[in-house]
Amino acid sequence: MPNFLSRRQFTIEWGHCDPAGIVFNSRFFEFFDWGTWVLFETALGVKPAALAGVFGITGIPLVDASARFLAPARFGDIVELTSRVKEFRRSSFDVEHQLIVRGALAVDGRETRVWATRDAADPSRIKATPVPEEVIARFQV
Amino acid sequence: MPNFLSRRQFTIEWGHCDPAGIVFNSRFFEFFDWGTWVLFETALGVKPAALAGVFGITGIPLVDASARFLAPARFGDIVELTSRVKEFRRSSFDVEHQLIVRGALAVDGRETRVWATRDAADPSRIKATPVPEEVIARFQV
Amino acid sequence: MPNFLSRRQFTIEWGHCDPAGIVFNSRFFEFFDWGTWVLFETALGVKPAALAGVFGITGIPLVDASARFLAPARFGDIVELTSRVKEFRRSSFDVEHQLIVRGALAVDGRETRVWATRDAADPSRIKATPVPEEVIARFQV
Amino acid sequence: MPNFLSRRQFTIEWGHCDPAGIVFNSRFFEFFDWGTWVLFETALGVKPAALAGVFGITGIPLVDASARFLAPARFGDIVELTSRVKEFRRSSFDVEHQLIVRGALAVDGRETRVWATRDAADPSRIKATPVPEEVIARFQV
Repeated sequence: MPNFLSRRQFTIEWGHCDPAGIVFNSRFFEFFDWGTWVLFETALGVKPAALAGVFGITGIPLVDASARFLAPARFGDIVELTSRVKEFRRSSFDVEHQLIVRGALAVDGRETRVWATRDAADPSRIKATPVPEEVIARFQV
Repeated sequence: MPNFLSRRQFTIEWGHCDPAGIVFNSRFFEFFDWGTWVLFETALGVKPAALAGVFGITGIPLVDASARFLAPARFGDIVELTSRVKEFRRSSFDVEHQLIVRGALAVDGRETRVWATRDAADPSRIKATPVPEEVIARFQV
Repeated sequence: MPNFLSRRQFTIEWGHCDPAGIVFNSRFFEFFDWGTWVLFETALGVKPAALAGVFGITGIPLVDASARFLAPARFGDIVELTSRVKEFRRSSFDVEHQLIVRGALAVDGRETRVWATRDAADPSRIKATPVPEEVIARFQV
Repeated sequence: MPNFLSRRQFTIEWGHCDPAGIVFNSRFFEFFDWGTWVLFETALGVKPAALAGVFGITGIPLVDASARFLAPARFGDIVELTSRVKEFRRSSFDVEHQLIVRGALAVDGRETRVWATRDAADPSRIKATPVPEEVIARFQV
Protein backbone atom coordinates (compact mmCIF):
# COMPACT_ATOMS: atom_id res chain seq x y z
CA MET A 1 0.00 0.00 0.00
CA PRO A 2 1.39 3.40 -0.89
CA ASN A 3 1.87 5.12 2.44
CA PHE A 4 4.12 8.04 1.57
CA LEU A 5 2.64 11.31 2.86
CA SER A 6 3.44 14.91 2.10
CA ARG A 7 2.43 17.87 4.22
CA ARG A 8 2.18 21.49 3.32
CA GLN A 9 1.38 24.30 5.70
CA PHE A 10 0.03 27.60 4.42
CA THR A 11 -2.08 30.58 5.36
CA ILE A 12 -5.62 31.27 4.18
CA GLU A 13 -5.53 34.57 2.33
CA TRP A 14 -8.12 37.33 2.04
CA GLY A 15 -8.48 36.61 -1.69
CA HIS A 16 -9.27 32.94 -0.99
CA CYS A 17 -12.43 33.89 0.89
CA ASP A 18 -15.93 34.77 -0.24
CA PRO A 19 -18.59 37.11 1.17
CA ALA A 20 -19.46 34.49 3.82
CA GLY A 21 -15.92 35.10 5.11
CA ILE A 22 -14.84 31.52 4.39
CA VAL A 23 -12.70 29.93 1.69
CA PHE A 24 -14.60 29.75 -1.61
CA ASN A 25 -14.97 26.10 -2.63
CA SER A 26 -13.01 26.21 -5.89
CA ARG A 27 -9.90 27.30 -3.98
CA PHE A 28 -9.77 23.93 -2.22
CA PHE A 29 -9.33 22.25 -5.59
CA GLU A 30 -6.41 24.60 -6.27
CA PHE A 31 -4.97 23.54 -2.92
CA PHE A 32 -5.38 19.86 -3.86
CA ASP A 33 -3.50 20.46 -7.09
CA TRP A 34 -0.68 22.10 -5.09
CA GLY A 35 -0.74 19.09 -2.76
CA THR A 36 -0.35 16.58 -5.57
CA TRP A 37 2.65 18.39 -7.04
CA VAL A 38 4.36 18.60 -3.65
CA LEU A 39 3.60 14.92 -3.03
CA PHE A 40 5.13 13.83 -6.34
CA GLU A 41 8.12 16.12 -5.96
CA THR A 42 8.80 14.78 -2.48
CA ALA A 43 8.26 11.11 -3.32
CA LEU A 44 10.11 11.11 -6.64
CA GLY A 45 12.73 13.79 -6.06
CA VAL A 46 11.80 15.38 -9.36
CA LYS A 47 10.75 19.02 -9.76
CA PRO A 48 7.11 19.31 -10.93
CA ALA A 49 8.07 21.16 -14.10
CA ALA A 50 10.52 18.34 -14.95
CA LEU A 51 8.13 15.45 -14.21
CA ALA A 52 6.85 15.03 -17.76
CA GLY A 53 10.35 15.12 -19.25
CA VAL A 54 11.90 12.70 -16.76
CA PHE A 55 9.19 10.05 -17.20
CA GLY A 56 8.38 10.60 -20.88
CA ILE A 57 4.75 11.53 -20.17
CA THR A 58 2.61 14.50 -21.09
CA GLY A 59 1.45 14.88 -17.50
CA ILE A 60 -0.86 13.50 -14.84
CA PRO A 61 -4.24 14.92 -15.89
CA LEU A 62 -7.19 14.90 -13.56
CA VAL A 63 -10.21 12.82 -14.52
CA ASP A 64 -12.20 13.04 -11.32
CA ALA A 65 -12.18 15.28 -8.25
CA SER A 66 -14.35 15.51 -5.18
CA ALA A 67 -14.44 17.12 -1.78
CA ARG A 68 -16.48 17.04 1.39
CA PHE A 69 -16.57 20.32 3.27
CA LEU A 70 -16.81 19.55 6.98
CA ALA A 71 -15.79 22.85 8.55
CA PRO A 72 -14.94 26.28 7.16
CA ALA A 73 -11.47 27.79 6.81
CA ARG A 74 -11.18 31.53 7.36
CA PHE A 75 -8.86 34.42 6.52
CA GLY A 76 -5.64 34.11 8.50
CA ASP A 77 -6.09 30.44 9.43
CA ILE A 78 -2.84 28.52 9.27
CA VAL A 79 -3.84 25.23 7.72
CA GLU A 80 -2.12 21.97 6.91
CA LEU A 81 -2.73 19.93 3.80
CA THR A 82 -1.78 16.26 3.91
CA SER A 83 -1.66 14.43 0.58
CA ARG A 84 -0.99 10.78 -0.26
CA VAL A 85 -1.70 8.35 -3.06
CA LYS A 86 -4.46 6.15 -1.76
CA GLU A 87 -4.29 3.61 -4.55
CA PHE A 88 -2.31 3.00 -7.72
CA ARG A 89 -4.18 1.15 -10.44
CA ARG A 90 -2.65 0.10 -13.77
CA SER A 91 -2.56 3.54 -15.38
CA SER A 92 -4.40 5.76 -12.94
CA PHE A 93 -4.25 6.59 -9.26
CA ASP A 94 -6.21 8.27 -6.48
CA VAL A 95 -4.74 11.05 -4.38
CA GLU A 96 -6.32 11.73 -1.01
CA HIS A 97 -6.10 15.23 0.45
CA GLN A 98 -6.96 16.23 3.98
CA LEU A 99 -7.05 19.84 5.06
CA ILE A 100 -6.64 20.35 8.78
CA VAL A 101 -7.88 23.61 10.27
CA ARG A 102 -7.49 24.37 13.99
CA GLY A 103 -6.69 20.74 14.71
CA ALA A 104 -9.70 19.22 12.97
CA LEU A 105 -10.35 17.78 9.53
CA ALA A 106 -12.07 20.57 7.59
CA VAL A 107 -11.99 19.31 4.01
CA ASP A 108 -11.60 15.77 2.76
CA GLY A 109 -10.73 15.57 -0.92
CA ARG A 110 -9.86 13.07 -3.58
CA GLU A 111 -8.43 13.34 -7.08
CA THR A 112 -8.19 10.61 -9.69
CA ARG A 113 -5.38 11.20 -12.13
CA VAL A 114 -4.02 9.38 -15.15
CA TRP A 115 -0.41 8.64 -16.09
CA ALA A 116 -0.66 10.01 -19.62
CA THR A 117 1.35 9.93 -22.81
CA ARG A 118 0.64 11.28 -26.28
CA ASP A 119 -1.37 8.95 -28.44
CA ALA A 120 0.98 7.78 -31.22
CA ALA A 121 -1.95 7.42 -33.63
CA ASP A 122 -3.22 10.95 -32.92
CA PRO A 123 -0.71 13.28 -31.20
CA SER A 124 -3.47 15.76 -30.37
CA ARG A 125 -4.86 13.18 -27.95
CA ILE A 126 -3.46 11.69 -24.80
CA LYS A 127 -3.84 8.16 -23.54
CA ALA A 128 -3.44 6.39 -20.23
CA THR A 129 -0.21 4.41 -19.84
CA PRO A 130 0.89 2.01 -17.09
CA VAL A 131 2.42 3.76 -14.09
CA PRO A 132 6.06 2.55 -13.91
CA GLU A 133 6.87 0.16 -11.08
CA GLU A 134 9.72 2.40 -9.94
CA VAL A 135 7.28 5.27 -9.51
CA ILE A 136 4.89 3.18 -7.43
CA ALA A 137 7.77 1.88 -5.33
CA ARG A 138 8.74 5.41 -4.29
CA PHE A 139 5.38 5.85 -2.59
CA GLN A 140 5.99 2.83 -0.35
CA VAL A 141 8.12 3.69 2.62
CA MET B 1 -39.08 14.90 -9.33
CA PRO B 2 -37.57 18.36 -9.73
CA ASN B 3 -37.12 18.81 -13.46
CA PHE B 4 -36.53 22.54 -13.80
CA LEU B 5 -33.38 23.21 -15.81
CA SER B 6 -31.32 26.35 -16.28
CA ARG B 7 -28.82 26.92 -19.05
CA ARG B 8 -25.97 29.35 -19.26
CA GLN B 9 -23.73 29.88 -22.25
CA PHE B 10 -20.32 31.44 -21.86
CA THR B 11 -16.86 31.61 -23.37
CA ILE B 12 -13.76 29.94 -22.04
CA GLU B 13 -11.26 32.69 -21.28
CA TRP B 14 -7.46 32.74 -21.50
CA GLY B 15 -7.25 33.16 -17.74
CA HIS B 16 -9.36 30.02 -17.17
CA CYS B 17 -6.72 27.86 -18.84
CA ASP B 18 -3.49 26.30 -17.57
CA PRO B 19 -0.17 25.53 -19.27
CA ALA B 20 -1.72 22.45 -20.89
CA GLY B 21 -3.97 24.92 -22.74
CA ILE B 22 -7.13 23.59 -21.11
CA VAL B 23 -9.41 24.86 -18.36
CA PHE B 24 -7.78 24.40 -14.95
CA ASN B 25 -9.94 22.10 -12.84
CA SER B 26 -10.82 24.52 -10.04
CA ARG B 27 -12.49 26.81 -12.56
CA PHE B 28 -15.18 24.20 -13.23
CA PHE B 29 -16.22 24.44 -9.59
CA GLU B 30 -16.53 28.21 -10.04
CA PHE B 31 -18.72 27.53 -13.06
CA PHE B 32 -20.89 25.14 -11.02
CA ASP B 33 -21.37 27.82 -8.39
CA TRP B 34 -22.47 30.25 -11.14
CA GLY B 35 -24.83 27.58 -12.40
CA THR B 36 -26.49 27.07 -9.05
CA TRP B 37 -27.14 30.78 -8.59
CA VAL B 38 -28.63 31.09 -12.07
CA LEU B 39 -30.75 28.01 -11.44
CA PHE B 40 -32.17 29.37 -8.19
CA GLU B 41 -32.71 32.83 -9.62
CA THR B 42 -34.57 31.40 -12.60
CA ALA B 43 -36.66 28.91 -10.62
CA LEU B 44 -37.53 31.19 -7.71
CA GLY B 45 -37.57 34.58 -9.41
CA VAL B 46 -35.36 35.96 -6.64
CA LYS B 47 -32.03 37.68 -7.23
CA PRO B 48 -29.13 35.68 -5.74
CA ALA B 49 -28.09 38.50 -3.44
CA ALA B 50 -31.68 38.64 -2.10
CA LEU B 51 -32.13 34.88 -1.61
CA ALA B 52 -31.05 34.78 2.01
CA GLY B 53 -33.26 37.74 2.96
CA VAL B 54 -36.37 36.52 1.15
CA PHE B 55 -36.27 33.04 2.69
CA GLY B 56 -34.83 33.92 6.08
CA ILE B 57 -31.75 31.78 5.62
CA THR B 58 -28.04 32.48 5.87
CA GLY B 59 -27.42 30.83 2.52
CA ILE B 60 -27.10 27.52 0.71
CA PRO B 61 -23.59 26.40 1.70
CA LEU B 62 -21.85 23.60 -0.11
CA VAL B 63 -21.09 20.43 1.82
CA ASP B 64 -19.93 18.22 -1.03
CA ALA B 65 -18.78 18.76 -4.61
CA SER B 66 -17.49 16.45 -7.30
CA ALA B 67 -16.74 16.40 -11.01
CA ARG B 68 -15.75 13.97 -13.69
CA PHE B 69 -13.64 15.47 -16.47
CA LEU B 70 -14.49 13.68 -19.70
CA ALA B 71 -13.09 16.04 -22.32
CA PRO B 72 -11.10 19.27 -22.15
CA ALA B 73 -12.44 22.79 -22.71
CA ARG B 74 -10.07 25.25 -24.40
CA PHE B 75 -9.56 29.00 -24.77
CA GLY B 76 -12.30 30.44 -26.96
CA ASP B 77 -14.67 27.49 -26.67
CA ILE B 78 -18.27 28.58 -26.34
CA VAL B 79 -19.68 26.22 -23.77
CA GLU B 80 -23.08 25.56 -22.24
CA LEU B 81 -23.69 24.76 -18.61
CA THR B 82 -26.93 23.02 -17.72
CA SER B 83 -27.88 22.91 -14.04
CA ARG B 84 -30.78 21.27 -12.23
CA VAL B 85 -31.65 20.06 -8.77
CA LYS B 86 -31.43 16.30 -8.97
CA GLU B 87 -32.96 15.64 -5.58
CA PHE B 88 -34.36 17.57 -2.67
CA ARG B 89 -34.00 15.89 0.70
CA ARG B 90 -35.38 17.27 3.97
CA SER B 91 -32.84 20.06 4.43
CA SER B 92 -30.30 19.47 1.70
CA PHE B 93 -30.30 18.99 -2.05
CA ASP B 94 -28.12 17.87 -4.93
CA VAL B 95 -27.46 20.07 -7.94
CA GLU B 96 -26.29 18.39 -11.12
CA HIS B 97 -24.19 20.37 -13.59
CA GLN B 98 -23.33 19.34 -17.11
CA LEU B 99 -20.88 21.29 -19.23
CA ILE B 100 -21.29 20.79 -22.94
CA VAL B 101 -18.32 21.57 -25.19
CA ARG B 102 -18.53 21.22 -28.97
CA GLY B 103 -21.73 19.22 -28.66
CA ALA B 104 -20.47 16.65 -26.17
CA LEU B 105 -20.59 16.30 -22.40
CA ALA B 106 -17.18 17.47 -21.19
CA VAL B 107 -17.67 17.79 -17.43
CA ASP B 108 -20.24 16.16 -15.24
CA GLY B 109 -20.54 17.75 -11.81
CA ARG B 110 -22.54 17.55 -8.64
CA GLU B 111 -22.91 19.78 -5.62
CA THR B 112 -24.65 18.96 -2.35
CA ARG B 113 -25.90 22.04 -0.57
CA VAL B 114 -27.74 22.73 2.64
CA TRP B 115 -30.65 25.07 3.32
CA ALA B 116 -29.08 26.83 6.26
CA THR B 117 -30.14 29.16 9.04
CA ARG B 118 -28.27 30.58 12.00
CA ASP B 119 -28.20 28.32 15.01
CA ALA B 120 -30.32 30.04 17.67
CA ALA B 121 -28.21 28.49 20.42
CA ASP B 122 -24.93 29.69 18.87
CA PRO B 123 -25.29 32.40 16.22
CA SER B 124 -21.71 31.84 15.04
CA ARG B 125 -22.84 28.47 13.71
CA ILE B 126 -25.27 27.52 11.00
CA LYS B 127 -27.64 24.59 10.94
CA ALA B 128 -29.60 22.74 8.28
CA THR B 129 -33.29 23.60 8.10
CA PRO B 130 -36.10 21.99 6.08
CA VAL B 131 -36.32 23.30 2.52
CA PRO B 132 -39.75 25.01 2.25
CA GLU B 133 -42.37 23.17 0.19
CA GLU B 134 -42.93 26.29 -1.94
CA VAL B 135 -39.28 26.31 -2.89
CA ILE B 136 -39.32 22.66 -3.92
CA ALA B 137 -42.53 23.21 -5.88
CA ARG B 138 -40.86 25.85 -8.06
CA PHE B 139 -38.43 23.27 -9.37
CA GLN B 140 -41.24 21.06 -10.66
CA VAL B 141 -42.53 22.21 -14.01
CA MET C 1 -7.18 57.93 -33.29
CA PRO C 2 -8.41 54.39 -32.68
CA ASN C 3 -12.02 54.80 -31.62
CA PHE C 4 -13.41 51.30 -31.96
CA LEU C 5 -15.14 50.23 -28.74
CA SER C 6 -16.28 46.86 -27.50
CA ARG C 7 -18.77 46.29 -24.73
CA ARG C 8 -19.36 43.25 -22.62
CA GLN C 9 -22.09 42.83 -20.05
CA PHE C 10 -21.79 40.26 -17.30
CA THR C 11 -22.85 39.45 -13.77
CA ILE C 12 -20.71 39.70 -10.68
CA GLU C 13 -20.52 36.23 -9.17
CA TRP C 14 -20.29 35.09 -5.56
CA GLY C 15 -16.83 33.68 -6.22
CA HIS C 16 -15.60 37.05 -7.52
CA CYS C 17 -16.22 38.66 -4.13
CA ASP C 18 -14.17 38.77 -0.94
CA PRO C 19 -15.14 38.92 2.75
CA ALA C 20 -15.92 42.64 2.39
CA GLY C 21 -18.68 41.53 0.01
CA ILE C 22 -17.12 43.28 -2.97
CA VAL C 23 -15.18 42.10 -6.00
CA PHE C 24 -11.62 41.15 -5.03
CA ASN C 25 -9.19 43.39 -6.90
CA SER C 26 -7.38 40.71 -8.93
CA ARG C 27 -10.66 39.77 -10.60
CA PHE C 28 -10.83 43.14 -12.32
CA PHE C 29 -7.58 42.32 -14.11
CA GLU C 30 -9.18 39.06 -15.28
CA PHE C 31 -12.09 41.13 -16.56
CA PHE C 32 -9.70 43.44 -18.41
CA ASP C 33 -8.08 40.46 -20.10
CA TRP C 34 -11.54 39.27 -21.20
CA GLY C 35 -12.22 42.76 -22.48
CA THR C 36 -9.10 42.89 -24.59
CA TRP C 37 -9.87 39.56 -26.26
CA VAL C 38 -13.42 40.61 -27.04
CA LEU C 39 -12.15 43.93 -28.39
CA PHE C 40 -9.65 42.28 -30.73
CA GLU C 41 -12.12 39.63 -31.84
CA THR C 42 -14.72 42.27 -32.63
CA ALA C 43 -12.36 44.69 -34.36
CA LEU C 44 -10.41 42.12 -36.36
CA GLY C 45 -13.03 39.45 -36.93
CA VAL C 46 -10.57 36.81 -35.75
CA LYS C 47 -11.25 34.35 -32.92
CA PRO C 48 -8.90 34.93 -29.97
CA ALA C 49 -7.44 31.44 -30.19
CA ALA C 50 -6.64 32.06 -33.88
CA LEU C 51 -5.11 35.53 -33.44
CA ALA C 52 -1.51 34.37 -33.13
CA GLY C 53 -1.77 32.09 -36.16
CA VAL C 54 -3.50 34.62 -38.41
CA PHE C 55 -0.98 37.39 -37.74
CA GLY C 56 2.15 35.26 -37.29
CA ILE C 57 2.72 36.42 -33.73
CA THR C 58 3.19 34.59 -30.44
CA GLY C 59 0.61 36.78 -28.75
CA ILE C 60 -0.07 40.18 -27.25
CA PRO C 61 1.63 39.88 -23.85
CA LEU C 62 0.97 42.38 -21.11
CA VAL C 63 3.84 44.56 -19.96
CA ASP C 64 1.97 46.98 -17.73
CA ALA C 65 -1.45 47.04 -16.05
CA SER C 66 -3.14 49.44 -13.70
CA ALA C 67 -6.53 50.20 -12.23
CA ARG C 68 -8.24 52.84 -10.13
CA PHE C 69 -11.05 51.53 -7.96
CA LEU C 70 -13.67 54.24 -7.65
CA ALA C 71 -16.69 52.31 -6.41
CA PRO C 72 -17.26 48.70 -5.40
CA ALA C 73 -19.02 46.03 -7.45
CA ARG C 74 -21.09 43.50 -5.50
CA PHE C 75 -22.51 40.00 -5.92
CA GLY C 76 -25.34 40.05 -8.43
CA ASP C 77 -24.46 43.41 -9.99
CA ILE C 78 -24.91 43.43 -13.73
CA VAL C 79 -21.93 45.36 -14.97
CA GLU C 80 -20.70 46.60 -18.32
CA LEU C 81 -17.09 46.60 -19.41
CA THR C 82 -16.11 48.96 -22.21
CA SER C 83 -12.72 48.40 -23.83
CA ARG C 84 -10.87 50.33 -26.52
CA VAL C 85 -7.31 50.83 -27.72
CA LYS C 86 -6.35 54.24 -26.50
CA GLU C 87 -3.12 54.47 -28.46
CA PHE C 88 -1.12 52.37 -30.88
CA ARG C 89 2.62 52.95 -30.78
CA ARG C 90 5.12 51.27 -33.10
CA SER C 91 5.02 47.82 -31.51
CA SER C 92 2.91 48.28 -28.40
CA PHE C 93 -0.49 49.68 -27.53
CA ASP C 94 -2.60 50.76 -24.59
CA VAL C 95 -6.04 49.32 -23.93
CA GLU C 96 -8.40 51.33 -21.76
CA HIS C 97 -11.08 49.50 -19.78
CA GLN C 98 -14.00 51.08 -17.98
CA LEU C 99 -16.29 49.09 -15.74
CA ILE C 100 -19.70 50.62 -15.26
CA VAL C 101 -21.69 49.57 -12.19
CA ARG C 102 -25.19 50.92 -11.54
CA GLY C 103 -24.66 53.63 -14.12
CA ALA C 104 -21.40 54.98 -12.77
CA LEU C 105 -17.74 54.38 -13.55
CA ALA C 106 -16.54 51.96 -10.88
CA VAL C 107 -13.15 50.85 -12.18
CA ASP C 108 -10.89 52.60 -14.64
CA GLY C 109 -8.17 50.33 -16.01
CA ARG C 110 -5.36 50.33 -18.49
CA GLU C 111 -3.21 47.62 -20.02
CA THR C 112 -0.09 48.08 -22.12
CA ARG C 113 0.52 45.16 -24.45
CA VAL C 114 3.14 44.27 -27.01
CA TRP C 115 2.71 42.85 -30.52
CA ALA C 116 5.14 39.99 -30.06
CA THR C 117 6.94 37.46 -32.22
CA ARG C 118 9.54 34.85 -31.40
CA ASP C 119 13.07 36.13 -31.36
CA ALA C 120 14.81 34.49 -34.36
CA ALA C 121 18.14 34.55 -32.51
CA ASP C 122 16.69 32.86 -29.38
CA PRO C 123 13.30 31.17 -29.88
CA SER C 124 12.80 30.91 -26.12
CA ARG C 125 12.44 34.70 -26.07
CA ILE C 126 9.88 37.00 -27.59
CA LYS C 127 10.41 40.43 -29.08
CA ALA C 128 8.23 43.40 -29.92
CA THR C 129 7.35 43.77 -33.59
CA PRO C 130 5.59 46.62 -35.42
CA VAL C 131 1.81 46.39 -35.25
CA PRO C 132 0.63 45.93 -38.88
CA GLU C 133 -1.07 48.92 -40.46
CA GLU C 134 -4.08 46.79 -41.38
CA VAL C 135 -4.57 45.90 -37.71
CA ILE C 136 -4.43 49.53 -36.61
CA ALA C 137 -6.83 50.50 -39.42
CA ARG C 138 -9.48 48.12 -38.07
CA PHE C 139 -9.65 50.09 -34.83
CA GLN C 140 -10.53 53.30 -36.66
CA VAL C 141 -14.21 53.49 -37.48
CA MET D 1 10.80 57.41 5.58
CA PRO D 2 9.12 54.07 6.19
CA ASN D 3 11.80 51.49 5.54
CA PHE D 4 10.37 48.35 7.09
CA LEU D 5 10.42 45.48 4.59
CA SER D 6 8.70 42.11 4.59
CA ARG D 7 9.71 39.17 2.45
CA ARG D 8 7.72 36.13 1.46
CA GLN D 9 9.02 33.18 -0.50
CA PHE D 10 6.65 30.91 -2.35
CA THR D 11 6.38 28.57 -5.31
CA ILE D 12 4.65 29.31 -8.59
CA GLU D 13 1.89 26.72 -8.99
CA TRP D 14 0.47 25.06 -12.09
CA GLY D 15 -2.86 26.77 -11.48
CA HIS D 16 -1.19 30.21 -11.43
CA CYS D 17 -0.07 29.80 -15.05
CA ASP D 18 -1.83 30.36 -18.35
CA PRO D 19 -1.52 28.66 -21.75
CA ALA D 20 1.68 30.62 -22.44
CA GLY D 21 3.13 28.69 -19.50
CA ILE D 22 3.66 31.82 -17.41
CA VAL D 23 1.85 33.33 -14.44
CA PHE D 24 -1.44 34.91 -15.53
CA ASN D 25 -1.34 38.62 -14.74
CA SER D 26 -4.23 38.77 -12.26
CA ARG D 27 -2.37 36.35 -9.98
CA PHE D 28 0.33 38.94 -9.35
CA PHE D 29 -2.31 41.22 -7.83
CA GLU D 30 -3.31 38.34 -5.53
CA PHE D 31 0.35 38.03 -4.57
CA PHE D 32 0.53 41.77 -3.83
CA ASP D 33 -2.48 41.47 -1.55
CA TRP D 34 -0.75 38.61 0.29
CA GLY D 35 2.34 40.78 0.54
CA THR D 36 0.49 43.68 2.10
CA TRP D 37 -1.08 41.50 4.78
CA VAL D 38 2.27 39.92 5.65
CA LEU D 39 3.86 43.37 5.76
CA PHE D 40 1.25 44.75 8.15
CA GLU D 41 1.28 41.65 10.32
CA THR D 42 5.05 41.78 10.60
CA ALA D 43 5.29 45.52 11.20
CA LEU D 44 2.38 45.81 13.62
CA GLY D 45 2.43 42.42 15.30
CA VAL D 46 -1.29 42.08 14.67
CA LYS D 47 -2.88 39.17 12.82
CA PRO D 48 -4.51 40.30 9.55
CA ALA D 49 -7.96 39.12 10.62
CA ALA D 50 -7.62 41.18 13.82
CA LEU D 51 -6.32 44.37 12.17
CA ALA D 52 -9.71 46.03 11.77
CA GLY D 53 -10.73 45.29 15.36
CA VAL D 54 -7.45 46.40 16.96
CA PHE D 55 -7.40 49.75 15.16
CA GLY D 56 -11.14 50.43 14.97
CA ILE D 57 -11.18 50.51 11.18
CA THR D 58 -13.20 48.66 8.59
CA GLY D 59 -10.06 47.75 6.66
CA ILE D 60 -7.41 49.04 4.30
CA PRO D 61 -9.24 49.01 0.95
CA LEU D 62 -7.37 49.34 -2.30
CA VAL D 63 -8.01 52.42 -4.42
CA ASP D 64 -5.30 52.01 -7.01
CA ALA D 65 -3.06 49.15 -8.19
CA SER D 66 -0.48 48.81 -10.91
CA ALA D 67 2.24 46.49 -12.10
CA ARG D 68 5.02 46.38 -14.65
CA PHE D 69 5.80 42.92 -15.95
CA LEU D 70 9.51 42.76 -16.74
CA ALA D 71 10.12 39.02 -16.93
CA PRO D 72 7.87 35.97 -16.73
CA ALA D 73 7.49 33.62 -13.77
CA ARG D 74 6.91 29.95 -14.57
CA PHE D 75 5.51 26.81 -12.93
CA GLY D 76 7.87 25.61 -10.21
CA ASP D 77 9.79 28.88 -9.88
CA ILE D 78 10.60 29.69 -6.29
CA VAL D 79 10.04 33.41 -6.08
CA GLU D 80 10.45 36.09 -3.45
CA LEU D 81 8.07 38.94 -2.88
CA THR D 82 9.37 42.00 -1.06
CA SER D 83 6.81 44.51 0.19
CA ARG D 84 7.20 47.85 1.91
CA VAL D 85 5.21 51.01 2.45
CA LYS D 86 6.78 53.55 0.14
CA GLU D 87 4.90 56.54 1.52
CA PHE D 88 2.33 57.30 4.18
CA ARG D 89 0.08 60.25 3.44
CA ARG D 90 -2.55 61.60 5.82
CA SER D 91 -5.11 58.83 5.35
CA SER D 92 -3.69 56.73 2.55
CA PHE D 93 -0.43 54.98 1.74
CA ASP D 94 1.45 53.33 -1.10
CA VAL D 95 2.76 49.80 -0.85
CA GLU D 96 5.55 48.79 -3.20
CA HIS D 97 5.90 45.14 -4.17
CA GLN D 98 8.85 43.58 -5.97
CA LEU D 99 8.77 40.01 -7.19
CA ILE D 100 12.19 38.47 -7.67
CA VAL D 101 12.46 35.49 -9.99
CA ARG D 102 15.79 33.73 -10.57
CA GLY D 103 17.67 36.63 -9.02
CA ALA D 104 16.12 39.37 -11.13
CA LEU D 105 13.22 41.77 -10.68
CA ALA D 106 10.34 40.22 -12.63
CA VAL D 107 7.34 42.27 -11.51
CA ASP D 108 7.29 45.71 -9.99
CA GLY D 109 3.96 46.58 -8.37
CA ARG D 110 2.30 49.29 -6.38
CA GLU D 111 -0.92 49.50 -4.39
CA THR D 112 -2.52 52.59 -2.94
CA ARG D 113 -4.69 51.85 0.07
CA VAL D 114 -6.83 53.85 2.42
CA TRP D 115 -7.07 53.70 6.22
CA ALA D 116 -10.85 53.41 6.34
CA THR D 117 -13.60 53.68 8.91
CA ARG D 118 -17.36 53.57 8.62
CA ASP D 119 -18.94 56.86 7.74
CA ALA D 120 -20.93 57.93 10.84
CA ALA D 121 -23.47 59.74 8.65
CA ASP D 122 -24.03 56.72 6.40
CA PRO D 123 -22.77 53.39 7.82
CA SER D 124 -23.09 51.74 4.41
CA ARG D 125 -20.19 53.90 3.25
CA ILE D 126 -16.58 54.05 4.32
CA LYS D 127 -14.38 57.08 4.62
CA ALA D 128 -10.66 57.72 4.77
CA THR D 129 -9.31 58.47 8.24
CA PRO D 130 -5.85 59.63 9.34
CA VAL D 131 -3.36 56.79 9.74
CA PRO D 132 -2.39 56.77 13.47
CA GLU D 133 1.10 57.99 14.28
CA GLU D 134 1.85 54.79 16.17
CA VAL D 135 1.11 52.77 13.03
CA ILE D 136 3.41 54.88 10.88
CA ALA D 137 6.13 54.66 13.52
CA ARG D 138 6.16 50.85 13.31
CA PHE D 139 7.26 51.04 9.69
CA GLN D 140 10.35 53.07 10.58
CA VAL D 141 13.19 50.86 11.78
